Amino acid sequence: MSAQKTLNVGLIGCGFMGRTHSNAFRQVNQFFDVGHRPVLAAVCARSADAVRGFADRWGYASTETDWRRLIARRDIDLIDIASPNDTHAEIAVAAAEAGKMVMCEKPLGRSAAESARMVAAVEKAGVPNMVWYNYRRVPAVTLAKHLVDEGRLGRIFHYRAKFLQDWTISKDLPQGGAGLWRLDAAVAGSGVTGDLLAHCIDTALWLNGGIAEVTAMTETFIKERMHTLTGKITPVGIDDASAFLARFANGSLATFEATRYARGHKALYTLEINGEHASIFWDLHDLHRLQYFDHRDEGQVRGWRALHITDGDHPYMKHWWVPGLQIGYEHTFIHQVADFLEGLAKGAPAAPTFRDALATDEVTDAVLASARSRQWERVPASV
Amino acid sequence: MSAQKTLNVGLIGCGFMGRTHSNAFRQVNQFFDVGHRPVLAAVCARSADAVRGFADRWGYASTETDWRRLIARRDIDLIDIASPNDTHAEIAVAAAEAGKMVMCEKPLGRSAAESARMVAAVEKAGVPNMVWYNYRRVPAVTLAKHLVDEGRLGRIFHYRAKFLQDWTISKDLPQGGAGLWRLDAAVAGSGVTGDLLAHCIDTALWLNGGIAEVTAMTETFIKERMHTLTGKITPVGIDDASAFLARFANGSLATFEATRYARGHKALYTLEINGEHASIFWDLHDLHRLQYFDHRDEGQVRGWRALHITDGDHPYMKHWWVPGLQIGYEHTFIHQVADFLEGLAKGAPAAPTFRDALATDEVTDAVLASARSRQWERVPASV
Amino acid sequence: MSAQKTLNVGLIGCGFMGRTHSNAFRQVNQFFDVGHRPVLAAVCARSADAVRGFADRWGYASTETDWRRLIARRDIDLIDIASPNDTHAEIAVAAAEAGKMVMCEKPLGRSAAESARMVAAVEKAGVPNMVWYNYRRVPAVTLAKHLVDEGRLGRIFHYRAKFLQDWTISKDLPQGGAGLWRLDAAVAGSGVTGDLLAHCIDTALWLNGGIAEVTAMTETFIKERMHTLTGKITPVGIDDASAFLARFANGSLATFEATRYARGHKALYTLEINGEHASIFWDLHDLHRLQYFDHRDEGQVRGWRALHITDGDHPYMKHWWVPGLQIGYEHTFIHQVADFLEGLAKGAPAAPTFRDALATDEVTDAVLASARSRQWERVPASV
Amino acid sequence: MSAQKTLNVGLIGCGFMGRTHSNAFRQVNQFFDVGHRPVLAAVCARSADAVRGFADRWGYASTETDWRRLIARRDIDLIDIASPNDTHAEIAVAAAEAGKMVMCEKPLGRSAAESARMVAAVEKAGVPNMVWYNYRRVPAVTLAKHLVDEGRLGRIFHYRAKFLQDWTISKDLPQGGAGLWRLDAAVAGSGVTGDLLAHCIDTALWLNGGIAEVTAMTETFIKERMHTLTGKITPVGIDDASAFLARFANGSLATFEATRYARGHKALYTLEINGEHASIFWDLHDLHRLQYFDHRDEGQVRGWRALHITDGDHPYMKHWWVPGLQIGYEHTFIHQVADFLEGLAKGAPAAPTFRDALATDEVTDAVLASARSRQWERVPASV
Repeated sequence: MSAQKTLNVGLIGCGFMGRTHSNAFRQVNQFFDVGHRPVLAAVCARSADAVRGFADRWGYASTETDWRRLIARRDIDLIDIASPNDTHAEIAVAAAEAGKMVMCEKPLGRSAAESARMVAAVEKAGVPNMVWYNYRRVPAVTLAKHLVDEGRLGRIFHYRAKFLQDWTISKDLPQGGAGLWRLDAAVAGSGVTGDLLAHCIDTALWLNGGIAEVTAMTETFIKERMHTLTGKITPVGIDDASAFLARFANGSLATFEATRYARGHKALYTLEINGEHASIFWDLHDLHRLQYFDHRDEGQVRGWRALHITDGDHPYMKHWWVPGLQIGYEHTFIHQVADFLEGLAKGAPAAPTFRDALATDEVTDAVLASARSRQWERVPASV
Repeated sequence: MSAQKTLNVGLIGCGFMGRTHSNAFRQVNQFFDVGHRPVLAAVCARSADAVRGFADRWGYASTETDWRRLIARRDIDLIDIASPNDTHAEIAVAAAEAGKMVMCEKPLGRSAAESARMVAAVEKAGVPNMVWYNYRRVPAVTLAKHLVDEGRLGRIFHYRAKFLQDWTISKDLPQGGAGLWRLDAAVAGSGVTGDLLAHCIDTALWLNGGIAEVTAMTETFIKERMHTLTGKITPVGIDDASAFLARFANGSLATFEATRYARGHKALYTLEINGEHASIFWDLHDLHRLQYFDHRDEGQVRGWRALHITDGDHPYMKHWWVPGLQIGYEHTFIHQVADFLEGLAKGAPAAPTFRDALATDEVTDAVLASARSRQWERVPASV
Repeated sequence: MSAQKTLNVGLIGCGFMGRTHSNAFRQVNQFFDVGHRPVLAAVCARSADAVRGFADRWGYASTETDWRRLIARRDIDLIDIASPNDTHAEIAVAAAEAGKMVMCEKPLGRSAAESARMVAAVEKAGVPNMVWYNYRRVPAVTLAKHLVDEGRLGRIFHYRAKFLQDWTISKDLPQGGAGLWRLDAAVAGSGVTGDLLAHCIDTALWLNGGIAEVTAMTETFIKERMHTLTGKITPVGIDDASAFLARFANGSLATFEATRYARGHKALYTLEINGEHASIFWDLHDLHRLQYFDHRDEGQVRGWRALHITDGDHPYMKHWWVPGLQIGYEHTFIHQVADFLEGLAKGAPAAPTFRDALATDEVTDAVLASARSRQWERVPASV
Repeated sequence: MSAQKTLNVGLIGCGFMGRTHSNAFRQVNQFFDVGHRPVLAAVCARSADAVRGFADRWGYASTETDWRRLIARRDIDLIDIASPNDTHAEIAVAAAEAGKMVMCEKPLGRSAAESARMVAAVEKAGVPNMVWYNYRRVPAVTLAKHLVDEGRLGRIFHYRAKFLQDWTISKDLPQGGAGLWRLDAAVAGSGVTGDLLAHCIDTALWLNGGIAEVTAMTETFIKERMHTLTGKITPVGIDDASAFLARFANGSLATFEATRYARGHKALYTLEINGEHASIFWDLHDLHRLQYFDHRDEGQVRGWRALHITDGDHPYMKHWWVPGLQIGYEHTFIHQVADFLEGLAKGAPAAPTFRDALATDEVTDAVLASARSRQWERVPASV
């Protein structure tokens, strides 16, 4: 491991995602043999106090309060964007132009147009880039990908995904401000479509290929909320709930749904694929399990298999503890860093790249467009 | 019980549904104290041999091979229609005109237009009538209705239902003939829309009120199948899969889906309602359980409650065994007969009546229309 | 079916078990092609009013209030004993001596000594006999037996069973009287050992062979209860809870437990077998499922299979509805009658016979003896 | 946080537990505000190569190959023992005598006698001490403790625990050597009794108080295995499976079982408590859930509640991510370090101390004694 190179990370944003990324950079080398050792070189946020406290806690060597200064620093190798959605594009383009590697929280931009500029920038600069669609690296989901790629499911008939939460049901919850920018359409771009459906779509495109067309509906259940910046009751611009029907390029049918009004569910991301021979089901609330049904099993003992994804022959798991012992949510980010670093070493970028993430934005754009037009909308064939 | 009146039943059709109905008529009086005792007076089917065997097995006193003769019989009080969908309307109208009570398997007609004629006939004749949407009488589903009616859920945000099967995936399965008329569009009217979604919609209208509008897609995965009547490969006219988005009159959003191509699921009818205060989930594969989440529970011990619907204070269950011991599918039909007989005694018809079932057909018509038009379609306000 | 012989049944007892047996006799011929048609010829109970009401409800042709008169009747072919435990031996011996077939509720006698007299009587008389250990005929449990017999599990290491209830926790519940004789040691013989553990042991002996030795503990949590016959507070003689460790003749280890003080469980009978190659788990609260794990499955997709026991290739299920649709508790009794009748036709008795049930009593005797002696007790090798 | 004191850790052992402990020391300060910052000062193991690699990976500042030298170092504040069981006592006593704080992997000693010497040493030296019974710090288990302590369960009737694994079924697995010292009785002390039942007992004593007496059985299914140190087939001295019945001081009854021969289970530690009013169930394979049943709930909506332990009002969880997102196995160790450090700051030691762990060893000794004597054995009242 003496040959390990350092990789100086400059993080922008010190909220929830700033924490998950920092943890991933700190943890990766104890569990994965990769060619680089990430160094927490600098963290940047607008509040000097907040960024100082964050740096102390996580061990960042320095702080910045202006992301432009961070990008300008010669010692920084990689810019990691974990700030609100409305800042992604400007930062990413600048970072790419400065020749930095760029990692960006999802969704990439607030629209496909914004994302396309980001893709153009990183591709022009030729810098490694990745988007933090972390659920691809839940071992159970990665195994699902392997099973699909091995052709075990046969022809795919159905794809089904939903992401249900319940944290915005109270009408007293304000929009905007620290943890609540996700309710402010100007900052977030959209509501659950960009925040939750984007996760479902990223996984779906990866597992089942491109989506051809969609018909959608969205709803804003609470029409007005106090805005924390102004203190005034202001119309709510985001979608509280969003659902769509889709046809994939491979002929399969799909239903997708996301909401923050499903009482009883905190982060219930579920997905299911039904193929000619086999089916797969997964649920974020039990992320260490994959349900697998194989029709080729002998009739009387055929049933859904509850795979407890903790064995050494399951994806990523040999790096962790012993069979039967679970990992959790945060590990998906560690896996993503491990794969990014492995990609660097091999010169083969790890997915999802900015370009991969643009494909998701094209679907979310089509969903939002269909909800407005009340028509089926085709998704541009970007992939 | 000496005051119990007899009710002479004339059953038409001796397939799967003929069996469930016959069992219900035979079983009801041992478990429910109702004012009538159904008598298996006659069964009718085209094949003299088949109908004779069925009568022997179930204890029918006589047989007929022409349903018109059955309806003409003075001794028959109630005509129960369990024959294929294309026969429902003609039989029901004739039975009503003959002054018989009429029970009819679902869906009522092959279209709302056909159903409307049936409604007109029974209402003109003033005869008791009911449609066998049996899932309302699963005790867990009946309890869900009680909880909704008590207002425990508060404002409803979401309704979600699906009915997944996998029995027609093989392309070697023919269409038409004995058990396979459900694949023949001329007989069945439609595929999963009328067969499976109709169940989901009936329950939904009962639990959550009227549906205002829908956008739908359908698919026929296997385009041609051998027809058993001709022996020839013939285009398949039914929908193999059908999904739609909906808005209820109460402002809630819904997703519905049915298919016979969901590998691993035999009869997975699930439904979920998310309200402001509470949510409900049910699954036909575990029909004796209702999942219930109540946000008003104390925070640290708040969670989904798995209600094992086998207690005396659960709907219908005091009539059966002791707590912890389950009933199954067939009992839903027995409950329906019990409620029908109780309705007779009280002079208050038990739901769903023909008119209630017409409302379901108006939704399925709108679903099929939307799948063709690729537009949102409004549902006529029939209820 | 014209060749079907009638079998005149005389039932003794019209409580909970009188109902399950009556239902089984009434239902069997509609679902199973067997050589006999049970006729509900007579029912007997001490209360003339109660027995008259029961006969009306279930369609018994006649009633008796003295079981000796019932046994003396020439028209009765089979005596079915569903009265409290303290009456089993005397009735069964008399019935056998009168040359009647005998069916008896479990446990057979209140002790192995009592049961041995019953075995001797039926074997001397050469009359068909069976004990209603109904859980062998849950299709999932029957499938477990098939899997064991096929050798799929390999060498057996562990057997685990428990039967948990919570209906006697209230100290205000009296002992004795109508439904409460199970709390009266003089009538019941023992508490949960004979009532619940007996079920667990019967299944265990069937699935895993003889038990060699046991060490046990029992407890009576509520020491005194009002007795309904006297109105007086009287010491409680039954065991409220009973647990034991065991070694089977095949070298496997076992834990068994039963109680009526497990808050939250109504009738949670679970069993698990761990073999060298495969394991099985079953739970009465989801009686339509069998959990099966096979180590020979390919590593990355190896997991517990949830077999939904509703397919035509599962035991008994082709006689019922269609795949995915469940049967319940009462059907186990119907299966038992079907197998009894098939045994009659073939001249090969269906298990468990009185002799099979005696083996269970020898284990429960050893359990109760060990609880008193605080020693390991060997089980006589009766089988 | 500038006031944070450093705490120099010297770890002994770099196997599985060395990894979990190291991770805990590295992670605690990012998530918990505690008064000390653990510093990975030194790691010690016999193999210079192995310890060097481990130090590099985890960031230990120095290495030792002789634990006596480590203890002799002035800069070390805390000795953490993660080496095989046969080394615990000698190291712990020496560390205490040198005035070091001591943490020790479980079980404390190979017998209560060995443990008693360790207790005496740390108590004489007055040094902070703790044993890594990590499962107390699974948030769901900690919540169970809160619910019990609040008296929600009422009088306790039953306790039930088991720990099932299947990793030693193959007879080709050797005993002794690197990861396999758990199969060597001389090193491990016992088999599953000390390894797995000890976990179950620690939690049980914590939740339900002292155990008064036990009756037990143990078995060694594979009688001989190749020993890696000698290459020879040698008798196996450990217990492969161990089960016991117990009576707690509070009058409740218990069953305990552990095995490494339960095909299909990797680390299935489950526990259940049944009280007069409420019951609790937990399962390590779904460690983020607690099942809770409260009889005081309204009858028709009474059921087992599946508490998804990911909310801010659940123990430890406000330190992690957001509701719905799970943590895993490793976090229990981080919680233990956090509590240890909080105990240091408050001057109130965190449990389980060495003395607490001795109580567990007294139970395991009684279990092993009972398995030999075939008698009930009383547990010394050490607590």
